[in-house]
Amino acid sequence: MLETFIDAAVGRIKADIVLKNGKFVNVFTGEICEGDIAIKGDKIVGFGKYEGEKEYDIAGKIVVPGWIDAHVHIESSQLSPEEYAKLIVPLGTTTVIADPHEITNVCGIAGAKYIADASKNTPLEVKVMLPSCVPATPFETSGAVLNGADTEKYLQEPFLHGLGEFMNYPGVIHKDPDVMKKLEAAQKLGKIIDGHAPDTSGLGLNGYIFPGICTDHECVSPEEAEEKVSKGVYVHLREGSATRNVAVNCKAVNAKNLRRFLLCTDDRHAADLKANGHLDNALRVAVKAGLDPIWAVTIATLNAAECYRLHGKGAIAPGYDADLAVLEDLKDFRCAYTFKAGKLVAQNGKALFETKEKILPDAVKNTVHLNKKVGADDFKLTLRGKRANVIRLIKDNVVTEKVVREVESKDGDVVLNGTDLLKLAVVERHHNTGNIGLGLLEGYGLKGGAIALTIAHDSHNIIVLGDNNADMASAVEEIRKIGGGMAISKGGKTESLALDIAGLMSSLPAEEYIARSEELLEKAYAMGISRDVEAFMSLSFLALPVIPALKMTDQGLFDVTKFAFCDINA
Amino acid sequence: MLETFIDAAVGRIKADIVLKNGKFVNVFTGEICEGDIAIKGDKIVGFGKYEGEKEYDIAGKIVVPGWIDAHVHIESSQLSPEEYAKLIVPLGTTTVIADPHEITNVCGIAGAKYIADASKNTPLEVKVMLPSCVPATPFETSGAVLNGADTEKYLQEPFLHGLGEFMNYPGVIHKDPDVMKKLEAAQKLGKIIDGHAPDTSGLGLNGYIFPGICTDHECVSPEEAEEKVSKGVYVHLREGSATRNVAVNCKAVNAKNLRRFLLCTDDRHAADLKANGHLDNALRVAVKAGLDPIWAVTIATLNAAECYRLHGKGAIAPGYDADLAVLEDLKDFRCAYTFKAGKLVAQNGKALFETKEKILPDAVKNTVHLNKKVGADDFKLTLRGKRANVIRLIKDNVVTEKVVREVESKDGDVVLNGTDLLKLAVVERHHNTGNIGLGLLEGYGLKGGAIALTIAHDSHNIIVLGDNNADMASAVEEIRKIGGGMAISKGGKTESLALDIAGLMSSLPAEEYIARSEELLEKAYAMGISRDVEAFMSLSFLALPVIPALKMTDQGLFDVTKFAFCDINA
Repeated sequence: MLETFIDAAVGRIKADIVLKNGKFVNVFTGEICEGDIAIKGDKIVGFGKYEGEKEYDIAGKIVVPGWIDAHVHIESSQLSPEEYAKLIVPLGTTTVIADPHEITNVCGIAGAKYIADASKNTPLEVKVMLPSCVPATPFETSGAVLNGADTEKYLQEPFLHGLGEFMNYPGVIHKDPDVMKKLEAAQKLGKIIDGHAPDTSGLGLNGYIFPGICTDHECVSPEEAEEKVSKGVYVHLREGSATRNVAVNCKAVNAKNLRRFLLCTDDRHAADLKANGHLDNALRVAVKAGLDPIWAVTIATLNAAECYRLHGKGAIAPGYDADLAVLEDLKDFRCAYTFKAGKLVAQNGKALFETKEKILPDAVKNTVHLNKKVGADDFKLTLRGKRANVIRLIKDNVVTEKVVREVESKDGDVVLNGTDLLKLAVVERHHNTGNIGLGLLEGYGLKGGAIALTIAHDSHNIIVLGDNNADMASAVEEIRKIGGGMAISKGGKTESLALDIAGLMSSLPAEEYIARSEELLEKAYAMGISRDVEAFMSLSFLALPVIPALKMTDQGLFDVTKFAFCDINA
Repeated sequence: MLETFIDAAVGRIKADIVLKNGKFVNVFTGEICEGDIAIKGDKIVGFGKYEGEKEYDIAGKIVVPGWIDAHVHIESSQLSPEEYAKLIVPLGTTTVIADPHEITNVCGIAGAKYIADASKNTPLEVKVMLPSCVPATPFETSGAVLNGADTEKYLQEPFLHGLGEFMNYPGVIHKDPDVMKKLEAAQKLGKIIDGHAPDTSGLGLNGYIFPGICTDHECVSPEEAEEKVSKGVYVHLREGSATRNVAVNCKAVNAKNLRRFLLCTDDRHAADLKANGHLDNALRVAVKAGLDPIWAVTIATLNAAECYRLHGKGAIAPGYDADLAVLEDLKDFRCAYTFKAGKLVAQNGKALFETKEKILPDAVKNTVHLNKKVGADDFKLTLRGKRANVIRLIKDNVVTEKVVREVESKDGDVVLNGTDLLKLAVVERHHNTGNIGLGLLEGYGLKGGAIALTIAHDSHNIIVLGDNNADMASAVEEIRKIGGGMAISKGGKTESLALDIAGLMSSLPAEEYIARSEELLEKAYAMGISRDVEAFMSLSFLALPVIPALKMTDQGLFDVTKFAFCDINA
C-alpha cells in the first residue's frame, strides 16, 4: 500500500481527492499557503500541483487540519458518542481527547470501553483517557473504584491513551500511597498524564507536576497560565458551557510560548453545542479576543497533536492523516466540508454519515440499583435543636457557601414552609447500600414539588431537591422507573426524561433530546425554581465534594474546606 | 522514590543540589528567568526558592538544558564513545542522537550495539538509531547487509531508538521492495525515521517524506530548509567538520517556524572537536550569524527532545531530567559546569568522570580480513588504449569530476611518472573476496609513495592511493598488520596509526590520538600531497558511490551520474 501512496505523492498516479484553488493554513510555518491538497486513501500525500479522481473547487475557502479538542467529557453533552459526533464533526472537529470520568464512576472500566467502542461507530476519532479519580473522593459511594493496581492494569489496554485529569492535588503533594501507585504506573508505561489543578502555583505546583502531570485546563487568569507554561505544562484554553476561560486566558499566549497552549471544551451540553458550536465557537471567541487566527488554528491542531503524541495528526503535510476542515474564513470558522481519514463526512453543517446500529452494552444500561423503594419518611430530617448548617447557592458559581439558619421542626421533621430552604438529598444508587445523605439548601426557589437527577458529580448518585417528602420520594421513584435520568414531581404527578446510558446520557437523537430536555426544564422553572440557577445542572454540582464550601454526598453533609463530614446541627 | 522527589519539589526536604543566584533559559516561554534550580537524584524538581545539601553559587552565569546533538556519527570523531564523551560533555552536550552507520557497515548490528554499550560507560546519553542503508549501495562490498527483515527485527531491540538517515532517496520514490519493507517496519513499530535528502523539493520531496521520514540535515539553502519545514520535516542546522551549514541555513529560522529546527554536527573529527568544540561551536556560529540566542538554545534542546520524543528532556522544569549546562554567557557559550542526571560531570572544560575499563568487544576488533597478501602486481593497470576515464578531485568538495586523459603504458601497466595522476584502489577487506577496484585519480599531488586507509565511505574497505605498485602493496600490508587504520609507505618504509575499532576509530585517549594522527598527517603531506586536500579524509570519500560524479568501489570504477559501473577505457 505504501507504494500506491508514494505513486500518488510524486504525481505518478491521480490522487483520490484533490482540493483545488483554495488556501490552507500551514501550522509549521505559521503562514497561509496556496496549492492543491492531494488525498489518497486516508492520508494527505502532499500539496503542490495535483490531479485527482475527484476534485473539489474550494476557491475562496481555507483548509485547516481537523480540530482536536484536547480535553472533553463526552458525557457532559448528555448524548451518546454517536449523536455527539453528529453534532461536532460538521463543525470541523475530527479528533477529541476524551476523559470518560463520569461514566467510569458509574460503570467502571466498562464505561470507558463503551465510549471507545461507540465512538468507533463514527468518523470522530476519540482518544480515550483512563479516568484517574474513580471515585473522586473517598467520602461518597461511586459505582466503581479504580485503585492503583487497576490503573496499572488498565493503562496497558490498547484502547486507553493515557491517564485522565488528576484532580486529586492534595493526594499528589501529600503522597497518598494509592495516588503514588497510579502516577508511577503511568510513568512506567510512558503514558501522558492530564492535570487539573485550579489555583496552584509555586512549589506546590512543582510538586504536583513533578510526576509528569503535563496539562491543565483550570487556569482562571493569564498569570496562572503563564506560570504553568513556564514549568512545562500544556495549558488548555477552555470554552465549556459553564466555564468559559478562552477570552481571558488567551491573553497569556505570545509568539514565544505559543506551542504550549491547547484548546478544549471540557464540558459542553447538547443544547450549547447545537446553538453555539464546539471548538469553532472557542476559536471565534479567541480571535474576537485578539488572538492571531493562525495561532488559534495552531493551538487547536498541531499543539494538541504534539502534546498528546498523535504523530501524523494536526497538520497538512505529506504522510499526515487526511483529517481536514474546509472553512469559509478564519473569523467565523464556518465549516463547509469536513474530511476524516480522507472521506467527506460533513458538508455545510450536516453530517454525511449514518452511525450503524447504536452500540449500547448492558454494562451501561439500567444503572439505578434501588431494591428497596425510597419512601417519604426517608426524607424526614430530625434536628437536635433549631440551628442548622445549610448549603447556600452562589449565583453563577459551582462553589457554595456554608451558612447557619434557624429552623423550626414539627413531628421530628424540619418545617420548610415559609422559608427559602429546601431539602437536599443524595440517594445512593449503585450498590443498594440504602445510603441517603440529607440536608438543607438555600437559594433555589422551588415550591410545591421536587426535582431529581442521576447526574450528580462525580459519583452520580440520585440527587433530589424538594420542599416536601412525598414529592421527593415520587421523584426518586420515577428516576428508578426510568432507569436514571431527570424527573420532577409536583403533588405526586411526575414528569421525566430518561438518561438511559448510565443515568448520564440519552440515546435519543440529539435534536429530540435537546427539545425534550428543554421542555422538562421549563416545567421545572414553572415550579418556581429561580432563573438564576440552571434547574438541573446546578443541582448536579451539589454532590461534588471537591468544590468548596459545603456539599452533600450519599454519606452525609460534607465540609470541603475541612475535608470532613459536617453535622447538620450547628 | 516518587515520594522523595515530591518532598523535595514542594520544599519539605532539602534538594540534593541547588543552583543559586544565576539565571536560566526557559525554553517554554522564550525568556531568561531567575530562581534557584533544585535537583534531587537524577531529576530537576523545580525552580523557585530552594535549599540544597550542596549549593552552587552561579551568580553571573546562565543555565541551559544540556545540549542535544540531533544527528551525529560518533565514528567520524575517530574516537571511542568513551573518549568522544570526554571531549563533548565538558562543552555542555548531554545527549546525542547517534546513527552508527559507519561501524554497522563494517560489523553489522554488533557495531551499533557496541556504540550503545560503550556509551553507557559514560555520562553522555546516546540514543542509537538503526542504520537504514547497510550497505549504502549494492555496488560495493560492505561488512554487513541489513535488509528489510533485519530492519524489522532490530527495530524492536530496546537499545535502538529509531531508523537512521534514509539516504536511499531513489529507493523510496521508486519503491524499491526492500526499501518499502524497511519503511513499513518503522511505521508499524511507530519509530521515528531520519532523513537525508539533499536537493529535493516539490512532489519528489512529498513522495520521499510520505512514509514518515521526518528530518533532514542536508539542506544547503534557507529556501530548501523552508520548503522542508513547510512539509513537516524537522530541519537540522548542521555544523560538521566538512559541512558547515549553520550560518547560511539559520536564515530560514523565524518566530513562526522556530519549533521545527534542530542542531547537529553530523561528522566532526577529534581534532576539530578539541580545537573548535561541539554544539557550542555550532551555537556560536548561529548567534554570530544573527540567530536569537534563546532561539538557538531552544533549537539545541527542546526542539530535539520533541522531534526525537525524548519526553522529559530539553527543558528546565519540574520532573525533567537534570541534564544541565551552566554557561558563562549566551555569546561564547563557554560551559562552566555540566550536570548529567543530577551529577556534576564536567567543570571548566574538564571531564570529571572516568570511564570504566573501555568496552571493546571482539566483534569490532580485527576487522581486516585479507587472507591472501596483496602484492605489487595486484595494482597493475592494463588499458586497452591510451585514453582513460579519470577521477578528478574538486577543491573543498566531496563531489568529483569525470575527465578523460591520455595515458602512456609500458609492460602492461600505466606509466604515471611525469603526470599528475595516481593509482586509486579499493581493496575489499571484509569477506576475503579478493576484490580490488582500480583506477586513476588526478589532483592529489602525492609523489614516491602510497597512502592507505580503512575509512572509506560507506563500506569502509581499504582505499589506497599511490604512484607505484610496491608502495601501494606495502601500505595495504601495513593496514592488514595493524588491523585497520591509516598508513603511508615510501620506498617500502611504512608508518601507520591503528584504528583498532572496526578500522574506523581508535581506542587511544583523545589527545594522544589527535597528536599521533596529526603527526602522520604531516608525514603524508611531506610526500607531496597537496595542502588543498585533507590527506586522509579526502581519500575516505572517494569510495562513496552516492556522490557524483566518478567514484571507486571494490567492484570497480563507478559513474554515479549514470548509477552504473564505468569502463576505465574511455
